[in-house]
Amino acid sequence: MTELTDNAYGKSNIHLFRVTRGASRHEVRDFTVGIRFSGAYQTAYCEGDNSHVLPTDTMKNTVYGLAKELPSSEPEDFALALARHFAAGNAEAHQVRVDIAERKWDRLGDLPGHPHGFTPSGGGKHLASATVAGTRATIESGVSDLVLLKTTDSGFADFRKDRFTTLPETSDRILATTVEARWSYLAEGTIDYGATWHEVNEHLRAGFTAAYSPSVQQTLWAMGKCVLDTCPAIAQIHLRLPNLHHLPVDLSPFGLEGKGEIFVATEAPFGLIEGTVRR
Amino acid sequence: MTELTDNAYGKSNIHLFRVTRGASRHEVRDFTVGIRFSGAYQTAYCEGDNSHVLPTDTMKNTVYGLAKELPSSEPEDFALALARHFAAGNAEAHQVRVDIAERKWDRLGDLPGHPHGFTPSGGGKHLASATVAGTRATIESGVSDLVLLKTTDSGFADFRKDRFTTLPETSDRILATTVEARWSYLAEGTIDYGATWHEVNEHLRAGFTAAYSPSVQQTLWAMGKCVLDTCPAIAQIHLRLPNLHHLPVDLSPFGLEGKGEIFVATEAPFGLIEGTVRR
Amino acid sequence: MTELTDNAYGKSNIHLFRVTRGASRHEVRDFTVGIRFSGAYQTAYCEGDNSHVLPTDTMKNTVYGLAKELPSSEPEDFALALARHFAAGNAEAHQVRVDIAERKWDRLGDLPGHPHGFTPSGGGKHLASATVAGTRATIESGVSDLVLLKTTDSGFADFRKDRFTTLPETSDRILATTVEARWSYLAEGTIDYGATWHEVNEHLRAGFTAAYSPSVQQTLWAMGKCVLDTCPAIAQIHLRLPNLHHLPVDLSPFGLEGKGEIFVATEAPFGLIEGTVRR
Amino acid sequence: MTELTDNAYGKSNIHLFRVTRGASRHEVRDFTVGIRFSGAYQTAYCEGDNSHVLPTDTMKNTVYGLAKELPSSEPEDFALALARHFAAGNAEAHQVRVDIAERKWDRLGDLPGHPHGFTPSGGGKHLASATVAGTRATIESGVSDLVLLKTTDSGFADFRKDRFTTLPETSDRILATTVEARWSYLAEGTIDYGATWHEVNEHLRAGFTAAYSPSVQQTLWAMGKCVLDTCPAIAQIHLRLPNLHHLPVDLSPFGLEGKGEIFVATEAPFGLIEGTVRR
Repeated sequence: MTELTDNAYGKSNIHLFRVTRGASRHEVRDFTVGIRFSGAYQTAYCEGDNSHVLPTDTMKNTVYGLAKELPSSEPEDFALALARHFAAGNAEAHQVRVDIAERKWDRLGDLPGHPHGFTPSGGGKHLASATVAGTRATIESGVSDLVLLKTTDSGFADFRKDRFTTLPETSDRILATTVEARWSYLAEGTIDYGATWHEVNEHLRAGFTAAYSPSVQQTLWAMGKCVLDTCPAIAQIHLRLPNLHHLPVDLSPFGLEGKGEIFVATEAPFGLIEGTVRR
Repeated sequence: MTELTDNAYGKSNIHLFRVTRGASRHEVRDFTVGIRFSGAYQTAYCEGDNSHVLPTDTMKNTVYGLAKELPSSEPEDFALALARHFAAGNAEAHQVRVDIAERKWDRLGDLPGHPHGFTPSGGGKHLASATVAGTRATIESGVSDLVLLKTTDSGFADFRKDRFTTLPETSDRILATTVEARWSYLAEGTIDYGATWHEVNEHLRAGFTAAYSPSVQQTLWAMGKCVLDTCPAIAQIHLRLPNLHHLPVDLSPFGLEGKGEIFVATEAPFGLIEGTVRR
Repeated sequence: MTELTDNAYGKSNIHLFRVTRGASRHEVRDFTVGIRFSGAYQTAYCEGDNSHVLPTDTMKNTVYGLAKELPSSEPEDFALALARHFAAGNAEAHQVRVDIAERKWDRLGDLPGHPHGFTPSGGGKHLASATVAGTRATIESGVSDLVLLKTTDSGFADFRKDRFTTLPETSDRILATTVEARWSYLAEGTIDYGATWHEVNEHLRAGFTAAYSPSVQQTLWAMGKCVLDTCPAIAQIHLRLPNLHHLPVDLSPFGLEGKGEIFVATEAPFGLIEGTVRR
Repeated sequence: MTELTDNAYGKSNIHLFRVTRGASRHEVRDFTVGIRFSGAYQTAYCEGDNSHVLPTDTMKNTVYGLAKELPSSEPEDFALALARHFAAGNAEAHQVRVDIAERKWDRLGDLPGHPHGFTPSGGGKHLASATVAGTRATIESGVSDLVLLKTTDSGFADFRKDRFTTLPETSDRILATTVEARWSYLAEGTIDYGATWHEVNEHLRAGFTAAYSPSVQQTLWAMGKCVLDTCPAIAQIHLRLPNLHHLPVDLSPFGLEGKGEIFVATEAPFGLIEGTVRR
């Protein structure tokens, strides 16, 4: 006897680019959307009965159709609207999850910027997810692709050694990471998600540089604490910090002495540090 | 008040290439290893105390050092040996997880093949993970990057329609996917992991082509069932099947009639179907 | 005064998947096509006059339309047919170039294989390009993504040293590369491009393993020579061989002695060796 | 008889990260370097004689060693110093080419910015290449990865139609591209390469938005002309502009009317427009 114990289906990588055409200026939003249903779909899997299966092609169409019908909004708001729409029309979907990654664009030119010319921002993507299960809806926000580096005020020492340890201790190294953060809210109803995202982004940067870093672990904690201390709406934040190693080059074979100037940036292998900071 | 509620740290993308030099022939194994500790590391995060922190650089060294000391083996065996080694030396690590993705190589030339010349196989990677928590160890195996396509014996019809549905019904389409499967075992001690991996790989292919596919969902079920029906050691299998859409090109604007010959292969967006089949 | 000195425009990454539905078996061809016109387009660039500009969208449509109208063939033949079609209809295009990269698929199952089930081959892509300039047409063929590795019978010694040289000499190392080869023909009219491609692919493999490799350079020469010696139709072959470094791990800090068994495969930086061998 | 007709060898993807530690502020430069020799290396290829072959590993070491010995500078200056160094020590290398791609970093925080905290800039990479052949040295500069988009003031109409043309004409579309530009100089000796790069970057943006775009071709010309008209040191500029299609979604099946608001951003296939503008 075999049985289906969990299931999920949906559409990934739906790219929506939206222009709001104001009288004198255009606004743009650039969302990549993923949709995922799970629930009472056993007959689809086990018997090939598609009668309750909304095509993933329809999910894609819905992103574009609802984008047209709804006013432009933050990705959290749009994700929630999509999830509620799908849940209302698909009772079999006991859980509907919508994930959005927003690529940010800046206006070209000096402030106030070009009315319809844009270039991508450098500061990380805005992540949002909405999950609707029956009458319950939850929102999570996040940031990804935010690269931070400091050239000093970081070290790693007094760590455990065993027979395979060769790493030298240091009190001055480069620290670099690509931040991925995801956070949830104490109460979701009245959040200004856009303003909160910018605040969190600022506090992650501030937490990264605020103090001497004895380890990525401790800096993760400092960054998470910095966010919670300044954003009262946030319940908890999960951080994922790859350690983008910048290794000092050994110049001694060339008769030269390294003084913290010449580094090789490596991609693999990399350390990966994660943690959740909660109120 | 803030607290750390979960944590994990480790090293990713440790690339180990291993040659076993037999008298007349060499064997190769090509493993990419990830290691992840979680446990009683609050003082590291919250106080910057590294005294219990084994450097991720040491984790990397250990992969190479233990590879030298241990005989060559399947990735499941090596993952378990690594996880046990780390758990034994790091009481704070309440859970140690080791993930391995093996790239397979074939011998060059006709059978029995070149003694030391190789080229990558075409048939998917071998995934293995071992998790050690105290005295308990669990093994999971998997396959990724296994691309399967059939040019007929697949359709999608009788599905739910709503106002955003434009997809035509079809009883003859291309079905293509990149299989990612992960499975666990009823009892782990006496498994021949290498032979089992090849068996599962074969049965996934067989399940994919065995019957008419009314949906990716139903084919997922057929593939999972085919594996469980033929591999008694396996307790359950999770399958993740992206739908690699091959869309028939509308040739009517050119005065031509399509007959299931000319397709455009698209990358985004894509359907994604998941499910777990359990005994 | 400014002027336009050269120009080119076209469409890239047109993905054509083609099924030939035989009575009992299907055949598949998987082409990614690029098209590029250059010629008398100054008024388009300098004056915004589009009257001679065939849209790149039309180029894309033509790939699918001609695929329907023409019998299935090798990528060289299809590239030439496309280039001739475009040149005939666009006198301003003094040169039309069509590039095709074919992904190869194998049948699933044991020989003779499944009638309509497929999985990608492991042995490199088939490249083809056709260039039509007036009445003159030239064909080039190639292979890419062909990964070859040997675990011994390779070294690198007696090289030039300067003050920055630290590389130790070796007479036993791993040699690995991803072959990219492009070749032209003495006379193009009567070539069986498919058979030739398979022959070249075999001879590149044979040349790679045939003898001790004192350097990538010398192995490049041996591979090119092996192709020219056995394929009389080929005029010259250009080879591009990245050196996929597999470095022996220094195990001495762990009290272990390396014996050519444990390697780290690195991705960057990499050596890159190129050369053309001509009859 | 076979012969070697051209050759090249070198090292690619050498990642140099350089910190200049000022009294109160650090500066960073992030270069990825490629080196390529070609010349009288026939004996290396054809006979396995390595006596004139400087190892590519030494090329890599030289990047780090010379970075230490030379003051920090623009990538053009460093590329030239490297190329001259290699040419001086390797008479067989009739041509030495050094390519650098610089990733730009901004300071974290408000102006004047953090003394040692950084995040990547959003505005394109700085490319530089130096080629030394005997006593002759040439410099080229460039920009890559500069993404520009405008939401209106762009169209495409009055183009050639044939039987495969289905593209509708439009006078209002999104225009988006990832600029790759490469330029050379009238006289190289006295250029401030850093200032020039910023100027060119500005003028490319200005040229992109300055006027209505009847085609990518015409905008390419406008961008190139804008650079030449304002940068007297530049002799010519080559531009490569992929057309990042943002297609209006057809909302009519949902009973909705599109008004230039809802687009799907696609990745493949894409138009690709190139041209050189010369003084």
